[in-house]
Amino acid sequence: MDILQAVSEALEQVKAKKPLVHQLTNFVTANDCANVTLALGGSPVMTNDPGEVEEMVSFASALVLNIGTLNGQLVDSMILAGKKAAEKGIPVIFDPVGAGATRLRSTAAERIIREIPLAVIRGNMSEIKTLAGINEGIRGVDSTAGQEQGEAVAMNLATRLGCVVAITGPIDIIARKDEVYHISNGHPLLASVTGTGCMSTALTACFCGVGDSFIGAIAGVATMGIAGEIAQKSLTGTEGLGTFRVRLIDAISNMTGSTFQAYAKIAQMKGA
Amino acid sequence: MDILQAVSEALEQVKAKKPLVHQLTNFVTANDCANVTLALGGSPVMTNDPGEVEEMVSFASALVLNIGTLNGQLVDSMILAGKKAAEKGIPVIFDPVGAGATRLRSTAAERIIREIPLAVIRGNMSEIKTLAGINEGIRGVDSTAGQEQGEAVAMNLATRLGCVVAITGPIDIIARKDEVYHISNGHPLLASVTGTGCMSTALTACFCGVGDSFIGAIAGVATMGIAGEIAQKSLTGTEGLGTFRVRLIDAISNMTGSTFQAYAKIAQMKGA
Amino acid sequence: MDILQAVSEALEQVKAKKPLVHQLTNFVTANDCANVTLALGGSPVMTNDPGEVEEMVSFASALVLNIGTLNGQLVDSMILAGKKAAEKGIPVIFDPVGAGATRLRSTAAERIIREIPLAVIRGNMSEIKTLAGINEGIRGVDSTAGQEQGEAVAMNLATRLGCVVAITGPIDIIARKDEVYHISNGHPLLASVTGTGCMSTALTACFCGVGDSFIGAIAGVATMGIAGEIAQKSLTGTEGLGTFRVRLIDAISNMTGSTFQAYAKIAQMKGA
Repeated sequence: MDILQAVSEALEQVKAKKPLVHQLTNFVTANDCANVTLALGGSPVMTNDPGEVEEMVSFASALVLNIGTLNGQLVDSMILAGKKAAEKGIPVIFDPVGAGATRLRSTAAERIIREIPLAVIRGNMSEIKTLAGINEGIRGVDSTAGQEQGEAVAMNLATRLGCVVAITGPIDIIARKDEVYHISNGHPLLASVTGTGCMSTALTACFCGVGDSFIGAIAGVATMGIAGEIAQKSLTGTEGLGTFRVRLIDAISNMTGSTFQAYAKIAQMKGA
Repeated sequence: MDILQAVSEALEQVKAKKPLVHQLTNFVTANDCANVTLALGGSPVMTNDPGEVEEMVSFASALVLNIGTLNGQLVDSMILAGKKAAEKGIPVIFDPVGAGATRLRSTAAERIIREIPLAVIRGNMSEIKTLAGINEGIRGVDSTAGQEQGEAVAMNLATRLGCVVAITGPIDIIARKDEVYHISNGHPLLASVTGTGCMSTALTACFCGVGDSFIGAIAGVATMGIAGEIAQKSLTGTEGLGTFRVRLIDAISNMTGSTFQAYAKIAQMKGA
Repeated sequence: MDILQAVSEALEQVKAKKPLVHQLTNFVTANDCANVTLALGGSPVMTNDPGEVEEMVSFASALVLNIGTLNGQLVDSMILAGKKAAEKGIPVIFDPVGAGATRLRSTAAERIIREIPLAVIRGNMSEIKTLAGINEGIRGVDSTAGQEQGEAVAMNLATRLGCVVAITGPIDIIARKDEVYHISNGHPLLASVTGTGCMSTALTACFCGVGDSFIGAIAGVATMGIAGEIAQKSLTGTEGLGTFRVRLIDAISNMTGSTFQAYAKIAQMKGA
């Protein structure tokens, strides 16, 4: 597999098919997630209500479950939507925001991975270690755990759950049972804009909505990293984080196969 | 009536009177709706809580009901606020986001049009056809239905409900019982930013808060379309959807009567 | 105390310690509050769920309670989180958005000031007068009351509650029992972007998370005012409120001690 070609083709598919991506997500970054979905070429719908999520997901191409803010019946809605998606063969992309930070989040995350067949889990190192049962102190919803053993953790979790596991960080790890890729794109400024993790998950869902989930996770995470590099390079004079955030969306909306060819730093570490 | 003069005067009234616009709306685009309200010259307040919506709407100049995300008691709050607004003679502007996409949304929309006397309904073709009882497949919250018969549908619904009906799309249709206008402003990029429909509704509410609802709907929809044109024309180099979205707000905040004179493509199709 | 030096040192502390700021806040401006927290150097976490707020606040450096949108159990969550914060010695910063506008808000605000030991209250003149028991008509969530007697009101409330009281407006008043500062930074455009008050509160919380609350309130309010001036001065040509809002975040992310030295208009009015 020529990974850059596969990723470029996936992007073309998103633009051609405009996948509807149903997102059960938090109220802090929902607007950004909708806008990156549109910027890539997908179509977002963000409803959380238990009275309609099964019906809504039925005509979606992918489903995002993001536990960034857990309000009332949100996890119940996620289970309803996730089961319907599984029944229909619609890929489910899970973002375990802050898993490990509180019992409520860890319990919600564990319930989701137990009850819903997932296509991709995208989180930071602490969150993924929590899902893997590796207990470490974490602080808020940002990762402080080291990146050691991440590859093994990701492969083990992927094998156990039969899904793709993406750990984002300075070097992103995208793993499935017998294969691991590293992505070395991105810029530290991405950690200074809220929701860049959530946005990576939304982008991944767009790609998963039109094809293979492993390619989808690589493409989604690489898109965000490359957009971060392009946005950062564009900054001049007194431009700061506000402008950086605007240029992220600019870069995503301008992304093409040529952008991947020029910027992507994707390397296979394990696998055929 | 010189429509451009009427629209320009309505804009001056918004800037002079700073109408308070109470918006019961979704969590995805609420921030954008508040910011366009301020950019035009109005004053937004966004509370949804059933314990205060009647009191809050009592000193508002217009009320928006937007069903983009239906959470818990939101429709009940909308009915409470809508009835109080009707009692006080405050115009109610309804945005039936995604009506037709799920039973929950269709039921909520039907309840609102049955129980609340509306000043304006602003939606896309599929949403308005759903309210009119014309059943078609729709996909998520975006319209896929054709624009045929839109004019007749809008006039019939407007006549039945005694309100203004605005259908936004490539050519916007603004109708009341015996009168129809077309607005040919706008740009396809508007469909690639989340919430531009919701924002049109918020702008319409600002205008309705200071005067006639038919002029208000024309002015609100035209403002968004013109802002889209100005924002798109301003893009250079690698600027994309992020910058486009920022420039939309710039254009709305810079809007004057002269802007309408220079850009507006508003034509009366039927009526005296 | 050299106030500019104190404020500059507080900023350095924020950047060095990256305080985790737990914010129970409204859904309209939560994204902006998270982004200004990051832009200043802090780390935001925005959960409202009563099932996790006590656990989450336990490892935070400051807690924000913002009643901009009161949904369901939000006040109960605020009381839980506030009591836990008090128990742990974590400063609580309260933003009584719209207190006085409805009974629900006034009741919520009164409950919070009665049950939670606060470090800082940051509001506009009408909101603070409501908390002080001075009944005046207010309109929506924006202040219309005059600025007369503000200083006395702030000092009295600060004395009664044993906290810092910050009244933002054309001239900001920062008061504690026996000391008052005025801040004359800012620009009228700040009132035309939603959430600039909420953002001032979030910035104040970042500063309070690393040191003295009186310095924190001065620093937080001054940062927003200075950012408003820098953002406004940067506007050229057809740039309007959209660009202004982006530049606000730029300015906050570029803020240094030198910025305070160059721009701050902070004057002690009463005190040793």
